[in-house]
Amino acid sequence: MAVGEDVLPALHPIAGLRLGTASAGVKKPGRRDLVVIELAVDATSAGLFTRNAFCAAPVQVARNHLAQAAPRYWVINTGNANAGMGADGLIRAESVCAALAAQTGVATAQVLPFSTGVIGEPLPAERIVAALPAAVAALDADGWALAAEGILTTDTRPKGASRRVRLPGGATLTVTGIAKGAGMIRPDMATMLAFVATDARVGAPLLKKMLVAAAEKSFNRITIDGDTSTNDALMLAATGAVAAELDGATLAALGDAVTEVCTDLAQAVVRDGEGATKFLTIAVAGGSSSAECLAVGYAVAESPLVKTALFACDPNWGRILAAIGRARVDALDVERISVWLDEVLIAERGARAASYTEAAGQDVMARAEITIRIELGRGTCAETLWTTDLSYDYVRINAEYRT
Amino acid sequence: MAVGEDVLPALHPIAGLRLGTASAGVKKPGRRDLVVIELAVDATSAGLFTRNAFCAAPVQVARNHLAQAAPRYWVINTGNANAGMGADGLIRAESVCAALAAQTGVATAQVLPFSTGVIGEPLPAERIVAALPAAVAALDADGWALAAEGILTTDTRPKGASRRVRLPGGATLTVTGIAKGAGMIRPDMATMLAFVATDARVGAPLLKKMLVAAAEKSFNRITIDGDTSTNDALMLAATGAVAAELDGATLAALGDAVTEVCTDLAQAVVRDGEGATKFLTIAVAGGSSSAECLAVGYAVAESPLVKTALFACDPNWGRILAAIGRARVDALDVERISVWLDEVLIAERGARAASYTEAAGQDVMARAEITIRIELGRGTCAETLWTTDLSYDYVRINAEYRT
Repeated sequence: MAVGEDVLPALHPIAGLRLGTASAGVKKPGRRDLVVIELAVDATSAGLFTRNAFCAAPVQVARNHLAQAAPRYWVINTGNANAGMGADGLIRAESVCAALAAQTGVATAQVLPFSTGVIGEPLPAERIVAALPAAVAALDADGWALAAEGILTTDTRPKGASRRVRLPGGATLTVTGIAKGAGMIRPDMATMLAFVATDARVGAPLLKKMLVAAAEKSFNRITIDGDTSTNDALMLAATGAVAAELDGATLAALGDAVTEVCTDLAQAVVRDGEGATKFLTIAVAGGSSSAECLAVGYAVAESPLVKTALFACDPNWGRILAAIGRARVDALDVERISVWLDEVLIAERGARAASYTEAAGQDVMARAEITIRIELGRGTCAETLWTTDLSYDYVRINAEYRT
Repeated sequence: MAVGEDVLPALHPIAGLRLGTASAGVKKPGRRDLVVIELAVDATSAGLFTRNAFCAAPVQVARNHLAQAAPRYWVINTGNANAGMGADGLIRAESVCAALAAQTGVATAQVLPFSTGVIGEPLPAERIVAALPAAVAALDADGWALAAEGILTTDTRPKGASRRVRLPGGATLTVTGIAKGAGMIRPDMATMLAFVATDARVGAPLLKKMLVAAAEKSFNRITIDGDTSTNDALMLAATGAVAAELDGATLAALGDAVTEVCTDLAQAVVRDGEGATKFLTIAVAGGSSSAECLAVGYAVAESPLVKTALFACDPNWGRILAAIGRARVDALDVERISVWLDEVLIAERGARAASYTEAAGQDVMARAEITIRIELGRGTCAETLWTTDLSYDYVRINAEYRT
């Protein structure tokens, strides 16, 4: 299940970047499970990685390589996360990088590996290496859509987004990205796998700032089940194919486009959340700090009781109040709190709103996309995040994942 | 579903305490849903209440009354939590107390109200008041088992425990308790509803200390779904019927008995967790502080991915490592971590154990009661907590609760 339309938008090619997808048979024979992304010689890259202490081997290798050299290749396999495998996992991840480097004539440190899939099984590196020539032969600037398919695991649909920014001189900058991820998503610094690129020329330090700002409003504001993966990575490349020098206003517009692409991708991940039947926006306002807005937002977004009530289309606003109440906000005055489901005020001054009717609540609950708006009445800070309901299918998918 | 045998142990009467159960028709006609517990004139009481900022009206009233006077009556209804109802909820809770006080000739402040059930609907106080005479008429020192039934909501079985402590002089102290609660259980200071009593003579301040110590090792170490109720309360009374002065050793023995009764009740709540098919002990050792052991323990105990894998009898140890890794323990060295499922070492030095076989993992997973033991290799602190798996039935029960 997934919420909203299943249409991959047009993914504009990025000059200076090509993508090749092949079948390595990592988990299942025949499925396209290997993607190689090639970056121009003078491209810059920035990356954000999981903060899970058990970060997977490819994350360790990617972080290490990124510190040594400007990447020329990103290589992504699905079906196996190469996580929890100790030193052997590192050797296997390095061997994939070395093979691709040898084949393309770059240094091993110029190749970043990414893996997603089951944790705790040896990466079949030899099968991946054997399929690299096919992926390299398939490299194509129009390879985005195939690559979007090639990086999926339990996702039910590919995820991509694209934006264009017109420059004052008439040139156009493009930002395009793809993502995978359907569960185990509670980002902190980065989340699941996402690969975004632009044809602008941007120095690596500035690119990193742009990526951090974008993540903070997109991938760091979504949650499915509170779990943070061992393999999460978010990459942004700038190929420099559009050579124009960018002034402050243009850089800001480019940054906005990157944030928009990341937000589209992050929301697409939530819409495709495991077993999702609803897409929920949790908007918390009136907080005295951003942190307390997020604490309240995540308490609501991750409450199994709130999520099962939403799955059941039950306007059980009491569970929302209970979740707000346990968010550990200092000296929270429940008398100041109001809660809306879309346009319907359901609770005010910490109790059921006088104007609220069960019929009005039911009407909202029938919708596939719902905003829970919470006013704390303590200040001027606000935060928005996105999540899903909790359904039978979430349990089924996660109970059957390895079988 | 529930884990383990469905046998209510013998609940020894407590001299100086009587329980009466009646049917008020709060939610369904005919079901026994009202319990009155009468304490001796010189009994002492101690209470621990939810830390949820949206604490229900009965919690506010009980806390307030407890600060004013020594309670003579505890009155408990199921079917309606009287939570999220603002000032009207307080009035209704007070009206129940006032009616029972008038009927029994005590002050209103000597009556403590407790409610459990659906949040956000007006308490049918008039129906409860109408049934109070029947409950009072039924008061009986042997009323524990009926009362254990009378306080249930989505529980599938009554929960009770009893212990006896032999005094050096030949007299015997008794501790007996009952509890309800099957979901929405992530205690902090107290959890769900539990009523425990002893016939010993213990001053109120000492009784409170005894209760805090017991809760810290029992109700504060369980979780079903990370949610904390608006209505949680844990009460301990000492009737003083056994007049013996207690020395240090005897007080310690009594405290142990209270902790044992609370632990039995807390574990019974977990065994009856909504949709539970497994009873899980999470034992974290080798921490440099109690807090970090608990952080790791709760991250594992509340991970939906770990819980669904357990439901599926899938020894997906990678999900356990991932949950440990995201517990935000400072400078966690994964190389020092080992994890066991019962007697089977599944991970060591942060990766799959060399000796581990899928067959051994499957063998453990087939069991209904499993201990996940985690060694952090950082220090000498340890903590143990208890939880359940996450099943289809958890979703079904919580999606259908109000229908």
